[in-house]
Amino acid sequence: MAQLELHPDRMLPADPGLRPVAREIYDSVRDLPIISPHGHVPAQWLAEDEPFGDPTSLLITPDHYVNRMLHASGVGLDQLGVGQESSSAQQSRQAFRLLCAHWSAYRGTPIRFWLESELAEIFELDIAPSAETADALYDAIADKLSRPEFRPRALYDRFNLQFLATTDDPCDDLRHHRALAEDPGFNGTVAPTFRPDRYLEAGRAEWIGLVDALGEASGCDTGSYDGWVAAMENRRAFFKANGAVSTDHSHADVQAVPLTPAEAGRLYALARQGHLGGAEADTLRRHFMFEQARMASEDGLVMTLHPAVFRNHHAETHRRFGADVGVDIPMAVEFTKALQPMLSAFGTAENFQVILFTIDETVYSRELAPLAGFYPSVFIGVPWWFIDAPDAMARFRAAVTETAGFTRTSGFIDDTRAYLSIPARHDLSRRIDAGYLARLVGEHRLSLDAAIETARDLVSDNPRTAFKLGR
Amino acid sequence: MAQLELHPDRMLPADPGLRPVAREIYDSVRDLPIISPHGHVPAQWLAEDEPFGDPTSLLITPDHYVNRMLHASGVGLDQLGVGQESSSAQQSRQAFRLLCAHWSAYRGTPIRFWLESELAEIFELDIAPSAETADALYDAIADKLSRPEFRPRALYDRFNLQFLATTDDPCDDLRHHRALAEDPGFNGTVAPTFRPDRYLEAGRAEWIGLVDALGEASGCDTGSYDGWVAAMENRRAFFKANGAVSTDHSHADVQAVPLTPAEAGRLYALARQGHLGGAEADTLRRHFMFEQARMASEDGLVMTLHPAVFRNHHAETHRRFGADVGVDIPMAVEFTKALQPMLSAFGTAENFQVILFTIDETVYSRELAPLAGFYPSVFIGVPWWFIDAPDAMARFRAAVTETAGFTRTSGFIDDTRAYLSIPARHDLSRRIDAGYLARLVGEHRLSLDAAIETARDLVSDNPRTAFKLGR
Amino acid sequence: MAQLELHPDRMLPADPGLRPVAREIYDSVRDLPIISPHGHVPAQWLAEDEPFGDPTSLLITPDHYVNRMLHASGVGLDQLGVGQESSSAQQSRQAFRLLCAHWSAYRGTPIRFWLESELAEIFELDIAPSAETADALYDAIADKLSRPEFRPRALYDRFNLQFLATTDDPCDDLRHHRALAEDPGFNGTVAPTFRPDRYLEAGRAEWIGLVDALGEASGCDTGSYDGWVAAMENRRAFFKANGAVSTDHSHADVQAVPLTPAEAGRLYALARQGHLGGAEADTLRRHFMFEQARMASEDGLVMTLHPAVFRNHHAETHRRFGADVGVDIPMAVEFTKALQPMLSAFGTAENFQVILFTIDETVYSRELAPLAGFYPSVFIGVPWWFIDAPDAMARFRAAVTETAGFTRTSGFIDDTRAYLSIPARHDLSRRIDAGYLARLVGEHRLSLDAAIETARDLVSDNPRTAFKLGR
Repeated sequence: MAQLELHPDRMLPADPGLRPVAREIYDSVRDLPIISPHGHVPAQWLAEDEPFGDPTSLLITPDHYVNRMLHASGVGLDQLGVGQESSSAQQSRQAFRLLCAHWSAYRGTPIRFWLESELAEIFELDIAPSAETADALYDAIADKLSRPEFRPRALYDRFNLQFLATTDDPCDDLRHHRALAEDPGFNGTVAPTFRPDRYLEAGRAEWIGLVDALGEASGCDTGSYDGWVAAMENRRAFFKANGAVSTDHSHADVQAVPLTPAEAGRLYALARQGHLGGAEADTLRRHFMFEQARMASEDGLVMTLHPAVFRNHHAETHRRFGADVGVDIPMAVEFTKALQPMLSAFGTAENFQVILFTIDETVYSRELAPLAGFYPSVFIGVPWWFIDAPDAMARFRAAVTETAGFTRTSGFIDDTRAYLSIPARHDLSRRIDAGYLARLVGEHRLSLDAAIETARDLVSDNPRTAFKLGR
Repeated sequence: MAQLELHPDRMLPADPGLRPVAREIYDSVRDLPIISPHGHVPAQWLAEDEPFGDPTSLLITPDHYVNRMLHASGVGLDQLGVGQESSSAQQSRQAFRLLCAHWSAYRGTPIRFWLESELAEIFELDIAPSAETADALYDAIADKLSRPEFRPRALYDRFNLQFLATTDDPCDDLRHHRALAEDPGFNGTVAPTFRPDRYLEAGRAEWIGLVDALGEASGCDTGSYDGWVAAMENRRAFFKANGAVSTDHSHADVQAVPLTPAEAGRLYALARQGHLGGAEADTLRRHFMFEQARMASEDGLVMTLHPAVFRNHHAETHRRFGADVGVDIPMAVEFTKALQPMLSAFGTAENFQVILFTIDETVYSRELAPLAGFYPSVFIGVPWWFIDAPDAMARFRAAVTETAGFTRTSGFIDDTRAYLSIPARHDLSRRIDAGYLARLVGEHRLSLDAAIETARDLVSDNPRTAFKLGR
Repeated sequence: MAQLELHPDRMLPADPGLRPVAREIYDSVRDLPIISPHGHVPAQWLAEDEPFGDPTSLLITPDHYVNRMLHASGVGLDQLGVGQESSSAQQSRQAFRLLCAHWSAYRGTPIRFWLESELAEIFELDIAPSAETADALYDAIADKLSRPEFRPRALYDRFNLQFLATTDDPCDDLRHHRALAEDPGFNGTVAPTFRPDRYLEAGRAEWIGLVDALGEASGCDTGSYDGWVAAMENRRAFFKANGAVSTDHSHADVQAVPLTPAEAGRLYALARQGHLGGAEADTLRRHFMFEQARMASEDGLVMTLHPAVFRNHHAETHRRFGADVGVDIPMAVEFTKALQPMLSAFGTAENFQVILFTIDETVYSRELAPLAGFYPSVFIGVPWWFIDAPDAMARFRAAVTETAGFTRTSGFIDDTRAYLSIPARHDLSRRIDAGYLARLVGEHRLSLDAAIETARDLVSDNPRTAFKLGR
């Protein structure tokens, strides 16, 4: 059986002059607590602290990063348990075998880095995945998962997590967050994030029912536009009272353009009757976004924008397996023109902050760094989703730092539902930033002391500032 | 006279730690057979096996890569024999002198790498090009070209070619391909490629005559839309029967959007009468493309897309010298939205495969890798044309691997009419991939064994899989 | 107090094999004269040769590169003297303290490189900026500025400037340029640049008054379109007679599309009456641009295009502080289609030259290198403004060289109003180009001799060719 061995210097620069510098920088941040201000781990896991299930239902089925590569390699999503209520023990084992048999398809991807880190560092296994080792690995992981030290809260402590944000529907009652906050046995912080996307897309069939529910949750009559505004303000306040620091928005574009109250009301009324067409629905959504920004300038919740992904690109896959199964494909995005009305209105407002994420790397040097290099309210989000990866992270630093320095960037976010991958994801980010900083040192652009200080800031100060976490 | 010496480690990483690793990886693939599944060498050359003419008519006149840089340096295309039936011996010699005198303009380009490789490795010359050495080089090359071992078939063997695809008009009778297939004296494989572009552009003046010819070649009446479909299916079948594995498509965009049969028929009838305007011609072309995809899902020919080039950008040059003379300029391109209808319909169909090439590097990480990272039918084409070059190749691997790994890429294509450049082009690709893999090894992201296996896959398995060449 | 020490190898590659090669290449160009063919230093400074004022009014207030990062860090532009007639001694000192206190925000930016170079090499100070050292630095700089050897002309000589272009309004009487040309005590060359932007934007409120002034300056009646053309030709000739070599154009796009004379006349008449709407104003501007190109093909002034920046993005900042204060944000730009009419008309005209600058890096390999790799009239401008920075410069060379070589690039431009930063900016460019060339040497893509020759060309021949400066 091939050994799984993680090299301590993995992902650091190969250059023999830079390697020791990078290692010194990395060593200075390796063990700092993890701040995870944007992600998708369910609060329920920590609130209930139940043991995780089998390896497949934890590591494969819910992780669209893992699944999509298997699908591209010819494996059906149904073979991985996707879209099913539950899987038999045999199905789970078989899915794990498929992953291991296709291990070479993950060469060069961070998915491989994360999973190998999980195997070696969390499960303390030294067997490399392959068709031959699948069962042994499966059994070993299953055994560990049954132990108390692998329960969610134990892992929270072991991971050295300091702050963990979830992503939540505005109508969510946040019962799990509240339970955790009131639980004297839990010392961590699990904060909700307000994600109102669906309530802003007034052209979709589901919208009317959603705003009805919003009305119920908030106690505001969402039959009128004014009621929608009041309901949003109410739910944002509820989230903030329960620890939320940010709101999250993912639409086809980032336009935020105000309408007159009369025009907003007119479109809202049409939407309530189910009569709002595509272009007008976009117009209303862009006004809603402007309203979210206005609310943010008042309640101080940080906006995070994750735009421009074509969701559910393959119709039949969506029909059979639902959303978030690996077939969301990024598109080009434009920030400069789109954000001008919003930033002209709130860009220097004291309470307002917005973090701009993208998978379209072209905007880093062209738009995001110049924006964050002027507006005190704008922060550049680190690479996200597909580009949460070593070379892409290095390109990100190279693209934005020369215009915006380090202070205008968000700090790492893992944006993951794969709870066990959180340490590996943050570790990878720390390694790549150390490598970038080492290059600046090697090129005499920064002293080693300044590089080490910067590395610590990126892990600690930057997320605290960008997400208003306090010190 | 300055010596021409090729360093054995050229194009490998300079880093002293990575160089030996890259060399070991490169050595493991250097001598593997060449698979060339997309290019423009005329089958006639191999079928007739005549000696090549003078150095200029082989190396300069037909090669728009070479010519455009001379043109940019102030040399008229007429001085290079472009657009002329033939050149005198003196004209050919003079054109070669112009190339040599402008040799420094090619510094840093792959064109220089290819030509120097040809001089040193095919012609076994050790004289660097310059104004002073032009005549000596010209005479030495001319002397070699007159020898039997420099005839097309002898070079096919010497180049270690295993598969060579040409690019052909749907009406082509493929006589040369058939002659080669039936010739017991030729052991190679020369396959046609079905390139129907002109038959899909119903707004152009030439279109009516073209589909008339298509009707004649296929025996189907192309007076109606149904006849066009039948004719296309007929010619695709003919190409497939003669060894074709793929079809090639190069339009302004990659949209493929189906119309109802009635609407397709209506637009087709208008086009037959010469009454189809620009926007409607695009609409019909996008429907035609959808039809090509539907046919591909049935006959299994692999689609290759090479979109978004502004052809014949300079009007007078086009008028005087015709097409393909170095003044085709790339444009931005969009894949995610444009391909959604086609991939939603055929993206998981068993027989369907499509390879996406681009000169717009922005789509690599943003669109192509995510698409190929989900759809089993989608492969990412390696850098093409202007970006078939060392640094661009390295950027390509860095941009796509982290999302899509190695298995979802096409393998190298040379896409060239410059027959003698084929070995150098494939060699360059092997060197750059070796350098990229060496970096992954140096950064402890991949073991050396896995890197060597991957390098071999990229040269052998990947093109066989992407182009369905069998093993 | 922390020492400020500039490493002699700063910005050269860290790789131990490449460093000595880069140093040898850099050493060969380090002391060559500076050619600055595009910038914003006022000719008045050199004509009058008055001492500069206090450190803040020289180094901070007018420099939007410096200011915008302070603004992003929470410092108001009013605290930096922006938009004010003058500042008190105390205000100036306080602004300098703010810069020093925020010194860490500039980590990784070229702004830091420039300022540190100025401190160490021009002011010969060895104190690193910090809150603690601000006053000492301020006093030391103020002391130097009062000395004769820090006057503009003395610095011109000390900087080894050979050619310096300013940027000027078409109505400018160029009195300072003429004074310098006639002054036997000044041996340098200070050339004006014709920048007619505002006279082409016929949809703006200011336009009517501007073309009235243009009529007065030229003696042509700009009440009609023909008069506008005559006035433009007249002023271009005046500029050329006073040493201008180029014209500069910065609009939202680079389209240049001719209208019929009748249509141009019709739109012009509407504009004179203040009745030209946004879309028609764009149409007229694009025709005006075509006319500028036509004039350039006749008078031979080189066109430089600097397109696609959203000016004055934050409305209130514009209102309070005016233009050019750090809140101009780049946008995506398209060249291939936009320039086709212009290049099809003038792209091979003997007298015509155009240099294409961009902040949108995506066009380098996709559009600009292919255009410059065919058209003898097209040159690729080096990275500009936000991307006038080490890594961006390296990306530029890697993106364009493989398609267009070195000869088709413009040579460095500093584009700065920060007179004291000119040597550091050119020095940085020389270092980065040396590093890029060293890599080509290290990868055996270029001999060291050829690399040294190329480095000298980039500093000397390329700007002379692109800007028609003669030898």
